[in-house]
Amino acid sequence: MDFISELKEKSKYIDLKLEEYMPKETGYQKTVFEAMNYSLRAGGKRLRPVLLMESYRLCGGKDEAFIPFSIAIEMIHTYSLIHDDLPAIDNDDLRRGKATNHKVFGEAMSILAGDALLSHSFEIMLGESIVSKYPNRGLNASYEISKGAGIYGMIAGQVVDVESEGEHIDREKLDFIHMNKTAKMIIASMRAGAMLAGAEADKLDAVSVYGERIGLAFQIVDDILDVVGDEKTLGKHVGSDIENEKSTYPAIFGIDKSWEIARKLISQAKEKLDIFDSEDSLFLSNLSDYIINREY
Amino acid sequence: MDFISELKEKSKYIDLKLEEYMPKETGYQKTVFEAMNYSLRAGGKRLRPVLLMESYRLCGGKDEAFIPFSIAIEMIHTYSLIHDDLPAIDNDDLRRGKATNHKVFGEAMSILAGDALLSHSFEIMLGESIVSKYPNRGLNASYEISKGAGIYGMIAGQVVDVESEGEHIDREKLDFIHMNKTAKMIIASMRAGAMLAGAEADKLDAVSVYGERIGLAFQIVDDILDVVGDEKTLGKHVGSDIENEKSTYPAIFGIDKSWEIARKLISQAKEKLDIFDSEDSLFLSNLSDYIINREY
Repeated sequence: MDFISELKEKSKYIDLKLEEYMPKETGYQKTVFEAMNYSLRAGGKRLRPVLLMESYRLCGGKDEAFIPFSIAIEMIHTYSLIHDDLPAIDNDDLRRGKATNHKVFGEAMSILAGDALLSHSFEIMLGESIVSKYPNRGLNASYEISKGAGIYGMIAGQVVDVESEGEHIDREKLDFIHMNKTAKMIIASMRAGAMLAGAEADKLDAVSVYGERIGLAFQIVDDILDVVGDEKTLGKHVGSDIENEKSTYPAIFGIDKSWEIARKLISQAKEKLDIFDSEDSLFLSNLSDYIINREY
Repeated sequence: MDFISELKEKSKYIDLKLEEYMPKETGYQKTVFEAMNYSLRAGGKRLRPVLLMESYRLCGGKDEAFIPFSIAIEMIHTYSLIHDDLPAIDNDDLRRGKATNHKVFGEAMSILAGDALLSHSFEIMLGESIVSKYPNRGLNASYEISKGAGIYGMIAGQVVDVESEGEHIDREKLDFIHMNKTAKMIIASMRAGAMLAGAEADKLDAVSVYGERIGLAFQIVDDILDVVGDEKTLGKHVGSDIENEKSTYPAIFGIDKSWEIARKLISQAKEKLDIFDSEDSLFLSNLSDYIINREY
């Protein structure tokens, strides 16, 4: 099977499991369940849950113990998108061609739906850890995810991104945003998967660095595509970074140098897979290539 | 020492510990730290962390293992107040006589500060559980708190409260709001404290029911004071429920019957303390009386 079909199959598997974990839309509070599920169903590639699953498998995990954590990490990602889109923050009306959460459910319900997804992700991880075979592994993985999503992780990146709008920032600050807003949750996905599988220190370290490098490359490529990408292929408006006078890799380094940096990060990520069996790590190797080749 | 002095001393102890757990206000993301700490310092009686501490002690806990959980529950309570006050939800400018979070830091930062406090509460609980003497107790307590704060807990109550504004609701729905919006986090405080102390099932059950009854009574008394209370003593505007045509216990049952129901709940709460040594449970017994006698 080619890589794209394999990725699609894995995303579809996550979609199915996600449906199982969505709250049933009944009860006095059902509006918030509808709002949560609306954005959970709005899709995407399910990159983070797929990475968590692959890291689990690569580190020797055989069963489905990773699933609640894959679901939780997608819920956290979804909450962050809902809150990002709010009028007070990015004020976006569309995401992946669909009306954003607050456009459908109103601002109050959107704030609450984001809060709901964040709380519920922990409720899922902790509840499943308690009844699992290895509660300590679940506890470690949940902690890792809380750090990735937290004030020295995703939220830090988001705060600095919001505060830097319309401002020219230097590379150090830009790297801080990329690392925290994007890479930390990708690193957390990789680490949580490895921890759930009981990985040894060297494997845990390898998947962490892999996650960091593809996370950083992912964000640089995002910035490049905002300049050179095709709206139709990408399915979103391009050029918004220039319109918003946003400091980006292309703005600081130019397009060619930005590609070079992204390619270097990807090659560093792939090197880290060397300690694993090359057949076992093929998917993650292909995935890192895909990050620079997507939409091309 | 009289009860009020004792309560004040315990709140002050929590205040001190809370300061230790507040993020240092440095780094690129320091604005969100300032916003978090601003609302954490805005005070109040620290009811939930004090309850968690007292439940821990009552169930035999001797050391300070409860502290991170008391801190976390206050952070969750604070996040819920910050998001409640937002223009899209209650649109409040003042809380406890101080400007609300979004009035000082703006809406975007307030949304992020709420998200930050919620994430950070889990980061604290899970991180401390891992290095504690009893990781499983920490895991159980964290799960309990995630449920209290979650979509079948505090968020459910908040959603239905927001949706019911200006609507006449029946007692069942009103009880749903009180139980979820207020009582569930108070129950979670009691249960988490007991679990951290390794309490037996009968004690865990007793403190849970105690928490439920004082939580429900607390909310009924709040509604009553909004009708008959004195603005100066309460330190807040009264009469807002009538102005907002809010369905409340006084609106459904009248003042006298509402007091009667609240008093009955408090006496049920106190009965549950009978299985403990009466000296050990004296503070919680006095606290339940205080809930109906406060501001009088």
